[in-house]
Amino acid sequence: MSKELSLQETGAMLLAAEKIVLCTHVSPDGDTLGSTLGLARFLLAQGKQVTVFCDDVINKSFSFIPGIELCERPVEGSKLQTDLLVVIDASSFDRIGLVSEVVEAKILLNIDHHISNERFAEYLYLDAKAAAVGEVMCDLFMAMQWPFDKEIATCFYTAISTDCGSFRYANTTPKTMRNAAKLLEYGVQPNEISDALDVRSRDTVEMLAKVLPSLTFAYEGKIAYLTITNDLYDKDVQTDSFVSYPRYIEGVDVAIMFKAVEPAVTRVSMRSKSVDVSAVAVAFGGGGHLRAAGCTIYAPVEEARTQLLEALGKLV
Amino acid sequence: MSKELSLQETGAMLLAAEKIVLCTHVSPDGDTLGSTLGLARFLLAQGKQVTVFCDDVINKSFSFIPGIELCERPVEGSKLQTDLLVVIDASSFDRIGLVSEVVEAKILLNIDHHISNERFAEYLYLDAKAAAVGEVMCDLFMAMQWPFDKEIATCFYTAISTDCGSFRYANTTPKTMRNAAKLLEYGVQPNEISDALDVRSRDTVEMLAKVLPSLTFAYEGKIAYLTITNDLYDKDVQTDSFVSYPRYIEGVDVAIMFKAVEPAVTRVSMRSKSVDVSAVAVAFGGGGHLRAAGCTIYAPVEEARTQLLEALGKLV
Repeated sequence: MSKELSLQETGAMLLAAEKIVLCTHVSPDGDTLGSTLGLARFLLAQGKQVTVFCDDVINKSFSFIPGIELCERPVEGSKLQTDLLVVIDASSFDRIGLVSEVVEAKILLNIDHHISNERFAEYLYLDAKAAAVGEVMCDLFMAMQWPFDKEIATCFYTAISTDCGSFRYANTTPKTMRNAAKLLEYGVQPNEISDALDVRSRDTVEMLAKVLPSLTFAYEGKIAYLTITNDLYDKDVQTDSFVSYPRYIEGVDVAIMFKAVEPAVTRVSMRSKSVDVSAVAVAFGGGGHLRAAGCTIYAPVEEARTQLLEALGKLV
Repeated sequence: MSKELSLQETGAMLLAAEKIVLCTHVSPDGDTLGSTLGLARFLLAQGKQVTVFCDDVINKSFSFIPGIELCERPVEGSKLQTDLLVVIDASSFDRIGLVSEVVEAKILLNIDHHISNERFAEYLYLDAKAAAVGEVMCDLFMAMQWPFDKEIATCFYTAISTDCGSFRYANTTPKTMRNAAKLLEYGVQPNEISDALDVRSRDTVEMLAKVLPSLTFAYEGKIAYLTITNDLYDKDVQTDSFVSYPRYIEGVDVAIMFKAVEPAVTRVSMRSKSVDVSAVAVAFGGGGHLRAAGCTIYAPVEEARTQLLEALGKLV
């Protein structure tokens, strides 16, 4: 169980340490990277010795984030002693990969916004109402009267805008908008950020061209799905966004993406407007949220599809 | 030449009239519709006699905007006398279609945010720094202390968020964000708005599936284009967004969409990151902006493609 800190206590703990490791979660997104790198920039300017760890490949679309070159992957078997390890935007300790083995810290601090936070760290600052840890960072900087500059503001703006789908998701609050307004005052260029984030690889668009013709409707158009057959599947091609194509078709309640990652292993992601897809995902050994869930079905894609559609058919 | 009004004078003019016609521009977008309908709701609540004219088909995706059922198309040959005609978000008089012939108004007021405004109206409120007329409406309501409710806030939020690409375009300012924050406080659901706006017809996604395989690269990947051949072309299917697929591919500077609307008539739209595509469009008798332009080439699609790529090849 963690001791929950105030913003002032969190700020004081960061200022008290000399040697600091900041770490993102694996599968790094804009929030974990932007929040970590904005904080790193401030702490470096204070003369702190800062290491930034990210135990995963970072998507090229994030290469514009100021300070992205600071991110290092921890090396298996190595050891790094530090005053303070700050785990940012991870709700459980297993979300930081090798960092948990490599870093030996006197103090472990977790800064997060997930309601599912597992309170694994000794100290915790948690704001489950924040749309992003980027918002928590804005609050922290304002509470501590730490200075923003264009780079820090760009980091936190990226963090906020990516985690609320560019202010399109339900987690967008008036405070989210006011934090974003404040960051824009430091010269953040929202169009440069969104252009950088929207870039897709040629491979991804070419894969989309091959996958989109598989669009199929079921249950009078209430379910729509795409299929990546095993011969099309390429682990190096980003296809996470593809489920949005069936999702936004009028009349569709449940959108599904079937991905035959092996001849007899099918990965499934589901999005819904009203149906509880997490219940269906859990029934197949997966999980997720009410309207966004996934599972892996150990069957060839045609069979997986039949099983899942049967389960979903009872709900739509 | 128009007399430019202050917000207070604009508000006073609206309150002084009893019989008011509000009108949107043709090819109505979220800004003209949201701004017009939010203002209409307030004026109706003041007991005014309000007519809302929109001389065009309204895209189904806007059907969620509160008050959308108020929009009427003016009838050719009819006449409507009114105290005040308010033209909203149109920078020239020819942008309101038949409304200019049908309505006989004592006073003509134009509320706009386009820097290219032609000052056609007797009275004008123009804020060329506003991302949307929806922002002007927020300013007007606040200056006049007119009350917002959830419906009015939803109208203006739709107006603002559509005209700044959901806060992703360069016109998004700190003030844009603070106006949006204020509107969210009245219970606007940003996710419901974006879900409604993102909906695409089944036809559009099925057409995309047929068109995307035509993706072709030229000039070492600096140009990418899609082609809708004449046999695929269907005037009833929305394909305006398709050019974004080549546009956001890494390394692409110029993205083009060729549409064979007739066997020997090819419509071209171009988007660019650095090349001045408007110059190329003008050379083919078209026009547009530096980074978004279009033209019609009176040739079969293969020939049109060859001509345009040759012209563009000198620039990339």
